[in-house]
Formats: sequence, structure tokens, C-alpha cells
Amino acid sequence: MISEYIEKCSGFMGSRDSYAEARAVILGVPLEVTVSFRPGTRFGPQQIRTVSYGLEEYSPYQDRDLNEAVFYDAGDLALPLGNLGESLNTIESAASILFTDGKLPVFLGGEHLVSLPLIKAAASRYPDLCVIHFDAHADLRPEYLGQPLSHATVMRRVTEVIDPRLLYQFGIRSGTREEFEYARQNTNLFPFEVLAPLTRARQAIGEKRPVYLSIDIDVVDPAFAPGTGTPEPAGISSRELLQSVDQLKGLNIVAIDLVEVSPPNDRQDITSVLAAKVIREAILGLW
Amino acid sequence: MISEYIEKCSGFMGSRDSYAEARAVILGVPLEVTVSFRPGTRFGPQQIRTVSYGLEEYSPYQDRDLNEAVFYDAGDLALPLGNLGESLNTIESAASILFTDGKLPVFLGGEHLVSLPLIKAAASRYPDLCVIHFDAHADLRPEYLGQPLSHATVMRRVTEVIDPRLLYQFGIRSGTREEFEYARQNTNLFPFEVLAPLTRARQAIGEKRPVYLSIDIDVVDPAFAPGTGTPEPAGISSRELLQSVDQLKGLNIVAIDLVEVSPPNDRQDITSVLAAKVIREAILGLW
Amino acid sequence: MISEYIEKCSGFMGSRDSYAEARAVILGVPLEVTVSFRPGTRFGPQQIRTVSYGLEEYSPYQDRDLNEAVFYDAGDLALPLGNLGESLNTIESAASILFTDGKLPVFLGGEHLVSLPLIKAAASRYPDLCVIHFDAHADLRPEYLGQPLSHATVMRRVTEVIDPRLLYQFGIRSGTREEFEYARQNTNLFPFEVLAPLTRARQAIGEKRPVYLSIDIDVVDPAFAPGTGTPEPAGISSRELLQSVDQLKGLNIVAIDLVEVSPPNDRQDITSVLAAKVIREAILGLW
Amino acid sequence: MISEYIEKCSGFMGSRDSYAEARAVILGVPLEVTVSFRPGTRFGPQQIRTVSYGLEEYSPYQDRDLNEAVFYDAGDLALPLGNLGESLNTIESAASILFTDGKLPVFLGGEHLVSLPLIKAAASRYPDLCVIHFDAHADLRPEYLGQPLSHATVMRRVTEVIDPRLLYQFGIRSGTREEFEYARQNTNLFPFEVLAPLTRARQAIGEKRPVYLSIDIDVVDPAFAPGTGTPEPAGISSRELLQSVDQLKGLNIVAIDLVEVSPPNDRQDITSVLAAKVIREAILGLW
Amino acid sequence: MISEYIEKCSGFMGSRDSYAEARAVILGVPLEVTVSFRPGTRFGPQQIRTVSYGLEEYSPYQDRDLNEAVFYDAGDLALPLGNLGESLNTIESAASILFTDGKLPVFLGGEHLVSLPLIKAAASRYPDLCVIHFDAHADLRPEYLGQPLSHATVMRRVTEVIDPRLLYQFGIRSGTREEFEYARQNTNLFPFEVLAPLTRARQAIGEKRPVYLSIDIDVVDPAFAPGTGTPEPAGISSRELLQSVDQLKGLNIVAIDLVEVSPPNDRQDITSVLAAKVIREAILGLW
Amino acid sequence: MISEYIEKCSGFMGSRDSYAEARAVILGVPLEVTVSFRPGTRFGPQQIRTVSYGLEEYSPYQDRDLNEAVFYDAGDLALPLGNLGESLNTIESAASILFTDGKLPVFLGGEHLVSLPLIKAAASRYPDLCVIHFDAHADLRPEYLGQPLSHATVMRRVTEVIDPRLLYQFGIRSGTREEFEYARQNTNLFPFEVLAPLTRARQAIGEKRPVYLSIDIDVVDPAFAPGTGTPEPAGISSRELLQSVDQLKGLNIVAIDLVEVSPPNDRQDITSVLAAKVIREAILGLW
Repeated sequence: MISEYIEKCSGFMGSRDSYAEARAVILGVPLEVTVSFRPGTRFGPQQIRTVSYGLEEYSPYQDRDLNEAVFYDAGDLALPLGNLGESLNTIESAASILFTDGKLPVFLGGEHLVSLPLIKAAASRYPDLCVIHFDAHADLRPEYLGQPLSHATVMRRVTEVIDPRLLYQFGIRSGTREEFEYARQNTNLFPFEVLAPLTRARQAIGEKRPVYLSIDIDVVDPAFAPGTGTPEPAGISSRELLQSVDQLKGLNIVAIDLVEVSPPNDRQDITSVLAAKVIREAILGLW
Repeated sequence: MISEYIEKCSGFMGSRDSYAEARAVILGVPLEVTVSFRPGTRFGPQQIRTVSYGLEEYSPYQDRDLNEAVFYDAGDLALPLGNLGESLNTIESAASILFTDGKLPVFLGGEHLVSLPLIKAAASRYPDLCVIHFDAHADLRPEYLGQPLSHATVMRRVTEVIDPRLLYQFGIRSGTREEFEYARQNTNLFPFEVLAPLTRARQAIGEKRPVYLSIDIDVVDPAFAPGTGTPEPAGISSRELLQSVDQLKGLNIVAIDLVEVSPPNDRQDITSVLAAKVIREAILGLW
Repeated sequence: MISEYIEKCSGFMGSRDSYAEARAVILGVPLEVTVSFRPGTRFGPQQIRTVSYGLEEYSPYQDRDLNEAVFYDAGDLALPLGNLGESLNTIESAASILFTDGKLPVFLGGEHLVSLPLIKAAASRYPDLCVIHFDAHADLRPEYLGQPLSHATVMRRVTEVIDPRLLYQFGIRSGTREEFEYARQNTNLFPFEVLAPLTRARQAIGEKRPVYLSIDIDVVDPAFAPGTGTPEPAGISSRELLQSVDQLKGLNIVAIDLVEVSPPNDRQDITSVLAAKVIREAILGLW
Repeated sequence: MISEYIEKCSGFMGSRDSYAEARAVILGVPLEVTVSFRPGTRFGPQQIRTVSYGLEEYSPYQDRDLNEAVFYDAGDLALPLGNLGESLNTIESAASILFTDGKLPVFLGGEHLVSLPLIKAAASRYPDLCVIHFDAHADLRPEYLGQPLSHATVMRRVTEVIDPRLLYQFGIRSGTREEFEYARQNTNLFPFEVLAPLTRARQAIGEKRPVYLSIDIDVVDPAFAPGTGTPEPAGISSRELLQSVDQLKGLNIVAIDLVEVSPPNDRQDITSVLAAKVIREAILGLW
Repeated sequence: MISEYIEKCSGFMGSRDSYAEARAVILGVPLEVTVSFRPGTRFGPQQIRTVSYGLEEYSPYQDRDLNEAVFYDAGDLALPLGNLGESLNTIESAASILFTDGKLPVFLGGEHLVSLPLIKAAASRYPDLCVIHFDAHADLRPEYLGQPLSHATVMRRVTEVIDPRLLYQFGIRSGTREEFEYARQNTNLFPFEVLAPLTRARQAIGEKRPVYLSIDIDVVDPAFAPGTGTPEPAGISSRELLQSVDQLKGLNIVAIDLVEVSPPNDRQDITSVLAAKVIREAILGLW
Repeated sequence: MISEYIEKCSGFMGSRDSYAEARAVILGVPLEVTVSFRPGTRFGPQQIRTVSYGLEEYSPYQDRDLNEAVFYDAGDLALPLGNLGESLNTIESAASILFTDGKLPVFLGGEHLVSLPLIKAAASRYPDLCVIHFDAHADLRPEYLGQPLSHATVMRRVTEVIDPRLLYQFGIRSGTREEFEYARQNTNLFPFEVLAPLTRARQAIGEKRPVYLSIDIDVVDPAFAPGTGTPEPAGISSRELLQSVDQLKGLNIVAIDLVEVSPPNDRQDITSVLAAKVIREAILGLW
């Protein structure tokens, strides 16, 4: 048989063939309609899968192996190009199926606006949901270039879905004066730093409350993650991001998204490799 | 006022300061919502301006000089990111102003979908308008990925604005079977070639009929214009494109668009340089 | 069901799910051990598949559609890294299965040395096999850097498998003096040109004799196919390559390889797009 | 009039239209004649402006906003290509106008040699001027490749304009033995580190003495600022550079230059983004 | 004679013309047959030499100058492409000559597999040899893709040459569960960190025992060294690598290799610059 | 002695070790002070040598081999960075030595301004010298940006060294109106084309008159030679350039320059490969 000679391809490393038996499910959400600067985030999910084969399935940090985790890579959502409303509806519907099926999803963006329909679906299923948000940007504008729906407004929209007091923002180092004022008065803002304030925030959140974790890769310094839409200097290191994800262990994480990976044309793009490693650690450690 | 729609930027080589006195007007239309492959066409107009400074204002082909032409570079339209309907309305409104003011516009895309509102505005002003279309792709799908408005459907939509018999398509070398069948029955299709059939078509069109010229840069072979969304091998050379534009002299050209320039990150990107040279020749020769 | 929302991926465009029903079979052979200059040809087959989605399945040149052809993409051979002997054995064994199963294979390289085991397998099945060879380089060295097995010696090795008089070489424009002397005396050498001498050669070959077609993408000028291991200026255009493939219609082609695509890091690499288009035309026209 | 020297271009984010009312003035000095390795620093100023639009005008570090600062971007100096002597004269004359007009200039290089005429102009206006110099390289050679005027000799030339004891050098980690010996005996050399020794140096300088701050971007590690002429590993982080600039608050800074940004061809080049952020923080914090 | 194996090329900065008088000898070993991901490591040695001219010969860290060191750059070994067995034999023979001649060699890879024949030659000369190994990957697989000889198995093979207890591994953050278990039981594994555990290890090794130092550049974080075959996030900084090399002073280092530099196409590739600086510091400080 | 001016480097393929016995001599002239757009032409000569190893020494076009030609590669001139006057003097002095020694030189630029001192030296030795000039640009400005010495004025300066009637310009497709008017009245201008008018010009020049051939690589279309300072679309193909060089056989060529190769960062940059092939053909065919 010719198939004996052939290499397997596609799917995040180690993913199983069966959706039914999987607890964690990876879903690509390649939305890209409102990105303002470096285009290409629609290619993020597939690039993360491609580079994932360069990593090991075993994590020496946690002494666990993806082969022991049962997860499924569902592929990328098919989104109607140029139709933002329908795209957001599609994303929310797909996410709702995952939550209804009792899955723990890992969503790969795509631009940050994907978090809005994803968090809507999550909040529907978990009414007391809180959101942990790692980002360089506050994303709290009331509107951006005249539009209410944008990667720059997404967390403001989220505060219309959940109580702003349940939004925890870490690593923020860019925004308008208005965004920072809004955040100081309404959300839990931890500017510049991630790991240190996370310990305090854990306490406040508690181990029962369902948590949605939204990671904008640009929380990391552009030296460690140059492939993103709006790089902002003076961020955390990739090591600190991994430690911060590790720090979330024990919380009741119900979903994760990792967004704004906009890979440059490079077979070994370090941004995607970092993203893949974060996903591996999250799957192994958070559920 | 047209200026209400405009972001400030530096102009195409030799452009004058006064809109009022200009006959030809350059307008950037950086729409990019439905592009399927290589992103970046929103940066096309500005990149064309940037590289235009590497060209001379004098054309030895025509023995004319941009300094003797009175034209104005109006800059780029500010488009609402992610809102396709409003973007198309904005484009149509802006174009209508130019036609009302008696200008001969050169529109720089942006993706090919921009031609739809532009041709609508032109057809409003010139009811017997015909369209000359240089492209590698037929762009005649009834819909694409479920959407009626796309770079892959734009000329089908145009045939709902003008009589399909008034659409002349040159250089087409890619499409579905349905598109080619539709074209053979409804439009004037000249597959693979541009310069040779143009002579015959000129005759049919006549010197009176108002003509809208739409140039998708991918009509040129990717060797000469690699920076485009969906490169299609076996196209014409850059020299043949320049000769073809020259061949249109004497027709009643009322507007031009040049679309799908999606410049790679290179200071001397040859696609944009070719586009700038085509614009120079068109301004000097076609009005 | 989540699967309703998901895009399909992998496989050359339009490939079917069943090996059994397919006549033509695509097989990637990502060998790369002896390449001397630009590395990366092992990524060629996968890159050709990736960019194939930017092309249409319909060919306006032939008025045929891949949807009407029944072919199967078997994926890439798994080759033991760094073990050349075992790699060549694996390739020959896999190819033999395809020939035994009565398939018409399209092999995607990998470096040109893959043609040796492939032609061995073909000659085993078709004892009177002749080889048509499109290339910039003669590949007729007796050895290269002390090694008998290399991309620079592959056609010399082939002349030890088939009668040198049955080797037809087109477009050759680079080699040592010894290679050219050997070719003039032993093979059918058509230097510099492809399309013109092909008409004559067709006659000599006849419609019955089984033909193996080996295309080194560097037969094309580097302007049209820069992504290759040893680009050689002054080649044919991509249009001429497509016409040459078309010219082979009616011959008894039993296998094709397309080798030395070494894609640069670019999502829209024009070399791979050209390769994909050649494959499409070959599948539609040659069987 | 300063405008006589200026080419028109679009300005740094938030810059005002009026030179007269501005206190801080940005001026590009795109000199590039003696660069030895990676070319392109002449494009630095314009690239910094281009990427500046990706940053916010508000600084959460200082809780200040560029909209509250009154500054003017004068554009780039037009320099006579290939005529070094005239170029340096032009730079000195332009800088003198700014100092005479009572402005606080931010000069964007260009290669480091620009600091010589700039510091000459500053020292003319402020006779007791001291210079704070952030750099990977000592730049203290008596001559380089036989030439006294070079980016590698610029600080040696500066010690002929001001007292060497008034030159404070931070972060230096590259030079000849002679340069380091000269520095240890004549200037205030703080090798390898920036932030820590700055606190001590502040004391010595005092709050009255006029200070010219010269930042060679290569003081930062190449991981954070790869786009520079002669990257030198083991530098400080971008965060430390921002903190160091912040540390200078309260000194009597009379001019700043930021040099040797040599942007690679990348729309989101992180070196230029870092440079733009440093400029924003400097304008907000230092005057 | 070593020179029989050598291709002529220009040398590392400051290298002398005479092999005989030199104590330290640089030798390029451009092996690349088993690399799995980013190709190009065969170009590493030459690229390191090219960028070395951008560095100074004087080290301010050690206050020493390459002009005072007597070393010789022997160029690159000529290896038979595609013949792994013969390549390894060639490498071992060449290395043996250097050890026999009493030289202290610095080997520049090439892929990590070069360390196997190099350490064999070293262990032949120094029977009680120990190996210090800086790497992101354990490289302890028993086989990789069915092959016993690979960059992923090299240190396992080394434990068949020397006592596994004499293998000290630092910075390891990637491997299979089996590799980590093997390492914990058999070698001296210091995961994640380099500088801190090195102090302890020094003690155990002592100043007499001959030490072979093998540096895989990917021990450094990809932010500081992106040009490598399998980048692994969360590594040490370039500063920490330099400090770690400095920390080895006083040990009885008898040979060094620096491998897996796989330079991207960039004239100022920061990975090669870092490698060149490490080599300079090693030559100045370790003998 | 010519060697006093020379930096050591590895030579063009097949070059001999002895200057004395060589008739043809290659000399790199890496001048780059007045380039306006894409920088990097100073790296041209070395890049041409590097890629030359990818070509064969045998020319099937001429059935000759570089091994049978006796030529010497003298390396690159060391030029004083930033000192234009001294650079031009150095170039002229070095060229004069070559002419005095009876050599037939091939000069590799560097920017086109190098042709001025080179032609001065040639005209000194051959008073009735004529110049054949292949270029996209007329290079006939009286001055450029206020400077009389520039790549844009070089042929105007040449007409002050030789009689303008002895300047033959081919392929010119860019210039100001003034340049074209000057050329039509004073030089022998053959716009747009090269090969066809060359036959006529040969006649006029005759086989006795000494000829200096100056090739600006941008005479070729940017598709075939993208790596140049100011690419101008609609040029000739690489095949036509090779045929044109071949067409010069039998003329009394006394020197050649090939300028404005400004290689992008790519190991297999096709512009340099074309340049190397042109040099090979010229050495084999023109003397």
C-alpha cells in the first residue's frame, strides 16, 4: 500500500481524530477585517499548526505530554469574506456548539475582535464569567474610525457583555487617555506587568469562577513576537508569558483564545513558535 | 467637498496643489476586505506614490512631461474598516463628486471590488458607458464564498450596471468554466491576449463612446508584477501593458482604475514602479 | 455539528479521497541531500499544494476542469533524513507500487536526483521507455564533488538505465564542456530552446513509445521561476513552458516529475504557482 | 528661514502646523555617506514617522498626551548627495537656526556623524554644554579608514568641540583598545550599563548645566532593535532604554538626537517603532 | 596535512597566516544532511566570518585583543554532499590532525551532528574527557525518524563515546519524556538555566579534567538568535550566554564547537553576529 | 603596484593567481556615495563573485571555457568612505595602472559614477576612444540635486572627456526632456532598443576604433534584474542582453564596466547571477 510510505500532515501536534472523545478542542478563527497595520492574521492559525511540528509534545516544565491529553483540532472556521456581521454570527454559533458539547475550547485568531462573539458564547453558557486579558493595548475605545466593532474596541464591547468589574487586564502599555481613565474606573487594570499582579488577582477571582483567558500575543515584547499587527515595545518576555500561563493553574478556565499572530513570511517565524508553545502549555496545564 | 473624505498625504510625482484647475485627478481607494490570498492591497496607492519619485516626469515614449499636464493628487479615501457597505457608498459618493466636477479620475486600488462603485458613478454620469477590462481573471462569478460582493464577482456585478455587451475583457486566463461560458455568451472576451485584439475592439467601440478603463495589475505576468493578490502565470509583459495603454489613445476615456497592487515589503518593489509608470503614461496620453 | 463550519485543507486542488478510483496520482518526494546552493526543495511539494488553492480548477487553455479528472494526491513520502541509499530505495519502491497499480503518477520533487529511482521504477514497468528532459542544466556529469549520485549527475545515471539515444534534452544552457560533448555524441540534445525542437522530436518518438517527462523548473528563466536551487539566466518564459507541455499531447506519457522547486519564504511565491499550473495542465492534457 | 532647507513630508504623530508656536521641533537629518555595513539609515527619519501612526499619542508611563505638547515636525533636511563637507555645513546651519529661535530640537538621523555639526551648533549657543551619549560603540577613533570624519570618529571630534570631561558615555561595549584607553583617561565612560550609572552621573551633571542627549539606537540589544548599521550583541532592553530616558527628567536637556536607525524593509519594523516611542516619551518628559 | 581537506576562503577577523605558530585553530564544518526544519546551516561558518568584520578585535569585557592572540582560521572542510558516512569520517580525521598537532580547535557547524566525530577525535586524545553542552534540546533520542545518526540523537551517541556521567547539559528546555528521563538518570541535566548551575558544575569538574564545550546557538532565546534550525522560545539572553562562556575560564577547555547557526538572508543577521562575538570571547578567554 | 590599492578577497570563478600573465583583469569598484534609491551597490562586486560559483566555467553559447582564458581577479578597490574626490582619484589611478600594464579590464561597480574616472583613464591611453553605453537612463543631466558628480550626470561628464559624437547610447527609456533633447542633438541615442540598432552602430564604429563598453544592469527589465538602484520597467530581457554582448564580437573593446548591481539580501539573487553570466560571456567572447 502506498499509504505506508506517507507522512501524516495537518492538525496541531498530537491532536486526535475524534471530536467526541476530546475534552479540549482547538478551533481556528481566521477573521481579518479590521486590522489596521500589518495584515496577515488570517494566516495565523494555520501557521501555528505548521510550526507546531518543530516542538516536542512533552513539556519539561510540567512533566506532561500531549499524547496523554485528549484533544482535537477542528481546523479553521470558514468565514464569509467581507461580511463582518455574518462572520461574527458564524463565530458565535460555532463557539456555542463547543460550549454546549461540554468542550474546553482553544480559539486561535485571527484579529482580536474574534473575542467578542467568543466571549458572548461563553457568557451565555457561564453567566458569572470573568475575563483575564493579556495585551499591550487596552482595546477599550468606544469606537474606532467611526466603527463600534474593531480590534481596538473589543474589550469595551466585552464590558457590555460581562460586568466590567469582572475584566482583568494585564500588561497594558498602550491606549488613549480615555481608555486608561475608563479602565482605572471600571475594569481591573494592571498596566505594564503581568506575572506579579497575577498572583494578587488569582486571589480575587477564586478557584470556582469560570474564567475566559484572552491572550493578545502583542503583550509580549516585539523582540520575542515581532509577527503581530501593532507591535508595542517594552513588553514582557516569552519566558514571562509562559510563567504567567502556568500561574493560572487551579483557576476554573473554561476557554482560551490566542489572537493577533500575524506571521511574517518565514518558515521558522518565532512568533508562531511561541504561540504554539503557549498552546501546548495551556492544554497540558489548564485542563 | 471632496476634501472631506480625504486623508492628507504626499502626492504622485508632479501633482499640483489646486484641485480646481486640474483636469485629471488621482484618488487612492485603499479598500481591502475581500482579498483572499496575499494581503496588503490597501497599501498600494501610497506605495505607488512613494516609488513614483524614482521615475522621471518626462515620457520619452510620448515626448510629453507631467509638468505640462495639470493634474491633482487628492490622496486616499478614508474608508470605515470592516464596514463593506458603507465603504462602497463612500467610494461611490466620492467618485460622483469627481464626475460632477468634470474631472477625469485615475483611481488607485485597493482590491478590484472598488471598480463596482466607481463604474456605478461613471455610468450615472455617462449612461452609454463601456468598460475595457485588463485582467488575468474573468471576475464574473455570480457569488464567491457565498458573498455577492467580492473581487471575484466584480465584473458580474458590473454587467448588472451596464449592458454586458459593452464589457470588453482582455488578457483573461483564469476563471471557472461557468465564468468563461458566461463571458463567451454575454461579454466581449479576448482570452490570453491584450494588444492584438485591442486593435479590433477599438474599431467596435468608436471614438465617441465614453470608456471606463479598469486595469487589474495581474494581467501582467507575475515575473513583471509579483506584488499582487492572486498572481497567475503566463501573462503579458510590462512592455505589452504600456503599449496597450498607448493603443487606447483617441478613445473617449472618462476614467481609469488600476487595482490589486499589493506591494511586498521592498523599497523598490517593481510592481508599484510599473503601476506608477502606467499611471504616468495614462495621464500623458489618454487626456 | 462543528464540522459544518470548517474549511477543508491539504491535498492538491480538486484531488479525490480514493486512491483506488484514481488514474493519476500525485506523490511528493521531498528529497534534499545533495543540493548545492539554495536549500529548501524539500518544502517544494507542500508549497505547491498550498498555492494551488489560488488557481482555478478549470483550464481555459484546454476547456477542461480538474473536477472532471479523477486523480488522487497521496501526500509526501516519508524519507529517512541523511540516509541517501535508503531514501532512493524508498522512492523506487513507492514508485513501483504506483506503476504496478496501473497509475499515471505525477511526482513532485525534491531535488532532481529523485528522477533516478523514479525512472528506474518506470523502466522496469516499461522496458522501451524514453525520457523527455526539460532543464537548464545537462545533469550529465560522471560524478560531482566525488559522488556518483547527485542532482548534477542524475541524467548520466539515467543513461545507464535507458539507452542514451532515448534521452531527449531540451532547453539546456549550462554544463561543463565534457557534459556537452557527451550529450552531442550520445543523447538527443536541444540546447537553449524547448518549444521549437519539440515538434521535431515528437515525430521521432512516435505516439506509442512510453514517455517519462522530467521537468526541472529551472528550464524557465529565473525571472519567471526564481525559487530554485541553481537559477540560470536566459531561459524560456512560463508561457513557453505551458505551451511545451501542451505540445506533448498525444504522446504516450506514463509518468511526470517536476523537480527543484525551492520556494523562497513568500506566501505567494510565483515559482510554486507556476509549478501548480503546470501540474494542472499536465493532469488535464496528458492523460 | 528653516523652511528653505526642508523637503515637504507628512509629520510625526500629533505634530502641529505652526513652527512659530512650537517649543520642541523634530528635524530629520538623513545623512548617509560613511556607513560601513548595513545601508539605509537615510530612510530612518521617514520610517520613524510612518510607524509612529501605529502608536498612541498618550503615554501611560507619564500620563501625558502629545496633544497637550506643542511641537512641530519640520521634515527632513535636503542634503547634497555625495558632498560631505557641504552636508555637514547644511546641518550645522539648520541646527543653529533652531537654537537661535529658542527651540528644543529632536534630530532624527541619519548616521551618527550628524551629531558633530549638531553638537557644534548647540555648543555655540550653550558654551558649557555637556553631552550624554548612549551607544554600543565608543566612536572615539582618531580616524577611520583614513578619514577623520566618520560615524566611528564622531565622539572623538566632539571632544574637540567640548571638554572631554563633559562627555558622558553609557552602554559602550565595543571599540578598539585605544578608544577604551582614551575614554578611561579623558571622558566619563560607563561601559555595558546605562540605567544604573545614570543615577550617579545625574548628580555630577546637576540640573542647571545644558545637556545634549545623543542616542545611538544600537545601545539597545539587536533583539530589540535589529535595524541598525552595526548591531552589537549583549545590549540593554528596550524597556531599559525607556526607563533611562525617563531617568533624565529634571536635567536641563537642550537637544536630543536619535541616530543609526537603518530600517529593514518591513512595514512593521520594530526598530523604528521603538525609536518612535522613545521620541514620544522624550517630547513628553524632557520638556 | 590538514590543508588537503580545506577549501580556500577569507578568515575570521584577525586570523594569522600561519597554521604552525597558532595555538587556537578555527575550522568550519558545514555539514547539513539531517536538519529537519530551517535549512541553511551549511552557510553558517562563512556567514560568521563575514559578519565578524563588523565587530572589534578588542574585547572590553576581558581587556584583551585578538591581535595579541595567535590563532589561525583554516577555512571550511570540504564534505562529500549526500554521503553522511564519509562526511563523518572526514570530520573525525581532520579533527584528529588538529588534536595531534596540539591545537585548541574552535569548530563552527554545521548541524549538531558534527559534534559526534569531533568528540570522538577529542576523546581519543583525552581519554578522561568531559563534555559541557549548552542547548535548548536534550539531543538524547536513541534514534530519530529511524536513523541513529541525527542532530536529535547526537548527545545520546556521545554517551556511547564518553561516560554519560561526564556529560553536563545546560539550558535544556525541549525533548521527549524519554530523553528527560534518560538525562535525569544518566547525565548531569540542568534544565532551563545555564549561568546559575554552571558555578556548581565547575566545582564538580575541577580545573584539570579536559573539557569539550559544545554550544548549540539555540540555547539562546530566538529573540536574540532567530537564525537557527529549530528555535525554541524561553531561552537565555545573549548577555547570559557571554557571561556563561566567561564563567568557564580556568577550566581545562581543549576544544569548542558552536553549531546550528542557520543564517537567514540578511547582511546583518544578528545570530551570526552573536556567534562571532562568542567565538571572539572564547578565543580570548578560554585559552 | 596595483596590489597596494586592493583588499584581499576570493576571486571570480576560474581566475588565476598571477596578475602578470593575465590579459583580462577583473577589478571591483564598490563606490556608493550618490545613489538615490535602493542602497547596497557597494556590495555588488563581492556578491557577483559569490554567486559566480553557481555557474559553469564553460559557455555552451560560445563553446569556450574560462579555464582556457587567462584572467585575474584583482579584488575590490579600497575606497575612502565619504570622500568622493579622493575616491574618484583612487579609481582613476588604479585604472591607469591597468591600462599602462596593457590589461583589458572588467570593472564591477559600484554606482555608475565610477565610469567617469574609468573612462578618463581609458581615454588617456586611447585618445580616439568611443563609448558604448547600455542603460535604462540617459545619465546626461548637467547636474543632479545641485551636484555635478552623480550617477545621473555621469554620461554628461563623459561627453566632456570624449567627443559626444563618440558616445553610443542603447536601451535608454528614462530621462528628463532636456536629457533627451541633448542626446538627440549631441550623442548617438538609440532609445528603448539594444540589439537591433547595435548592428547599425557596429558599422559606424568600425573594427579598429577602441571601444569602452559601459553596462548599467538596469538596461534589463526589472523582472530579470530587480536588484538595482532605480529599476525602470519595460526593458530588454536577460537573453537579449547576452545576445547584445555577443553582437559586439570583433569590435576593438578595450575595457568593460558593469555597474549598479545592488543585490537584495538573497543567497541566489538573480541580478548578480545575470551579471556574473554577462561577465563570463564578455571575458570569453570580447577578448
